[in-house]
Amino acid sequence: MTIKTALTDLLGITHPILLAPMAGVAGGALASAVSHAGGLGVIGGGYGERDWLARQLLEAGNAPVGVGFITWSLRKNPDLLDLALAHRPGAMFLSFGDIDDLAPRIKQAGIPLIAQVQTLAQARKAVSDGADVIVAQGAEAGGHGSTRATLPLVPAVVDAVGAGVPVVAAGGIADGRGLAAALMLGASGVLCGSLFYPSRESLAHPRAKQAALAASGDDTLRSSVIDVARGIDWPGQWNIRTLRNPFIARWNADLDALRHSAAVEKPRYLQAAAEGDVETAAVIVGEGIDLVRRDEAAGAAVQRLADEAEALLRAAPRLLD
Amino acid sequence: MTIKTALTDLLGITHPILLAPMAGVAGGALASAVSHAGGLGVIGGGYGERDWLARQLLEAGNAPVGVGFITWSLRKNPDLLDLALAHRPGAMFLSFGDIDDLAPRIKQAGIPLIAQVQTLAQARKAVSDGADVIVAQGAEAGGHGSTRATLPLVPAVVDAVGAGVPVVAAGGIADGRGLAAALMLGASGVLCGSLFYPSRESLAHPRAKQAALAASGDDTLRSSVIDVARGIDWPGQWNIRTLRNPFIARWNADLDALRHSAAVEKPRYLQAAAEGDVETAAVIVGEGIDLVRRDEAAGAAVQRLADEAEALLRAAPRLLD
Repeated sequence: MTIKTALTDLLGITHPILLAPMAGVAGGALASAVSHAGGLGVIGGGYGERDWLARQLLEAGNAPVGVGFITWSLRKNPDLLDLALAHRPGAMFLSFGDIDDLAPRIKQAGIPLIAQVQTLAQARKAVSDGADVIVAQGAEAGGHGSTRATLPLVPAVVDAVGAGVPVVAAGGIADGRGLAAALMLGASGVLCGSLFYPSRESLAHPRAKQAALAASGDDTLRSSVIDVARGIDWPGQWNIRTLRNPFIARWNADLDALRHSAAVEKPRYLQAAAEGDVETAAVIVGEGIDLVRRDEAAGAAVQRLADEAEALLRAAPRLLD
Repeated sequence: MTIKTALTDLLGITHPILLAPMAGVAGGALASAVSHAGGLGVIGGGYGERDWLARQLLEAGNAPVGVGFITWSLRKNPDLLDLALAHRPGAMFLSFGDIDDLAPRIKQAGIPLIAQVQTLAQARKAVSDGADVIVAQGAEAGGHGSTRATLPLVPAVVDAVGAGVPVVAAGGIADGRGLAAALMLGASGVLCGSLFYPSRESLAHPRAKQAALAASGDDTLRSSVIDVARGIDWPGQWNIRTLRNPFIARWNADLDALRHSAAVEKPRYLQAAAEGDVETAAVIVGEGIDLVRRDEAAGAAVQRLADEAEALLRAAPRLLD
C-alpha cells in the first residue's frame, strides 16, 4: 500500500515526495536517488552554470528526474532551458518569479510544469499562466523564500486553485508527520529540502551536513547576508533562510557595509564555502531541521517518510472515540 | 464519535479546540460560547484592566472557562492572578515570558497550567517550570508572537517535551483541515484566534470583523507599530501580526518617528480603535484568515471544525492504495 494522490498520478511516481532543487546541493546523484526511491528528484539548476548542470544531468543517468530553475535567473540564461528540456526531464520546476513567458515552451515540450509560489496571489497567477502543479512554499523553508507560513498557506492555495491542480506543501516538512499533515491540509504531496541536505548523496560540504544534523530550527533565520556576500542580486521580495552563524549575525544589521566590503568579503565567503567553514559559510536549511537527525541515504529518507506517513494515516480513525 | 486526545482527557473537554485569549476580543461571552460547544474558552486577561476582567468572568457565568495572561504584564499586576484563581478557572494560560515565579501558585490551586511558547528552548523551560500543557505558537498566528512557524515547531516540541505533556498547535489553524493536520503532527489539540475574531460573541468592533472576513493571509504582517502607537511597552522579542493598513504601512519603516509623535498619534489610534476605523486601527488576525469566511456563532465554529476534522481522520486510510 502506498499513498496515492493527484500528484503521484500526474507525475507517475510512487511516493508523493519531491526533492527541493537546492542550488549546488541537489545534483544528479541526489536527484536520481530520490527518484529511484519512488519520489521525484529535482536537480537544482542554480545560477546559470551551464557546465555544472550538464554534468549533473549526465550524473542522473536514466532516472526520471526533474530540473528546477530560479525564474529570474533563468531569464538571464535562457539557453539553460533548452539544455534541460533536451534531457526530457520528469518535470520542470520554476520558482521565484512569473512564469508566463517560460511556460509555453515547457508545455509544448509536453513536460509537466511545477511552479513554486509563496503567496495566494502568486498561486492564482501561476495557474492562469499554465502551471500543472503548484508548490506552496512557507517561510520556514530553508533557502530562498518569502514570509507566509506553510500550514495556513497550503489549504488557502488548495481552495484558490481548485481541484484540478495538485498542490504540494513545502517548508518545514522533514518527517512522516509533516507528510501526513500536509495531506490533511489538502496537499497532494510534499517538497523536502532540509531532509535531504545532509543525506549521503547531497553535494553540501561534509562539515555543513554535520552542522545541519546538530542544529535546531530555533537557530535559523532569514536574511540577505549571504546573497550580498556572494554578489548575487536577488530581488528584495525573497531572502534566504540558513543557520545563524557569526558571519551572518555580524553583517545582518548592516548590509550596506557588507556591500562596501565586497572586495574583501566575497572571496573570503566563497573560500569559506569551499572549505566548509560553517562559521562563515551558510548552512542552508530550514526550521524543519530539528526533525533531521540521521546520517542516511536519500532513498532511505524517502522510504522512511512514506512509511511513517502511511502508518499515521492508517491509524488516524483511532483518534476518534 | 469525537476526537479523544491527552488534551481532552486532561481538561475534561469534548473537542480539542481552545480559544486564544485575545486581549479585548475574547471576553466572557466568547469564552463561554466556546466552552459550551465542547472546547475550552479562554478569557483574554489583557493588560491589567481589573474591572474589565471581573466583568468578563461574571459574564462567563458557570461555563468552565480558562483565563489567559500576558506573563510580563501580569507581573506588573499580580493581584489579577488572585482574581482569576478565585473564579476557579478551567485552566490558567500564560504567554510571553518565563512562568517559573507564577507556576507554583497556579499548581497549588490545582488549576491546569497551559504555557504558550514560540521556540523549542522555551518549551523545554516551561515544562521544567511546571506547565501541564504546552501551546506551540507559530509566527503565522494573529496577535503577538515571534518567528518560528507552526508546522515544523509542533513536532519538534512534541519530541522535546515527551509523551507526558500534551502539545497544542497554535498559529494558522482555522478549519478542520488544520485541526486534522495538527493531530498528524503529534499535537493533542489546537488553539484558534482568527477563527473566533469575527464570530458573533467576539468583542472586536463590527467593522473589524467585516474586514477580517474579507481579508487574505497575504494581507497580514508582523510589526510593532500598534504597540508603539498604543504606548504598550512590549519586549522586543515579540511583535504583533495584524492586517496591513495605511497607518501600519506608514509607520512601520520609522517607529522612532511614531514614538516622537505619540502625543498626537496615541489618542488618534485609540479613537480609531473605538470607532472601528480599520484604516488606522489594526484588525488583529493571522495568516489563517483566508479560511474564515463565515459570519457564525463561536459554538457553530467549534462544532464545524470538529466535524470537518473527524471526517478527514475517518477517511485518511483511503489515501492508501
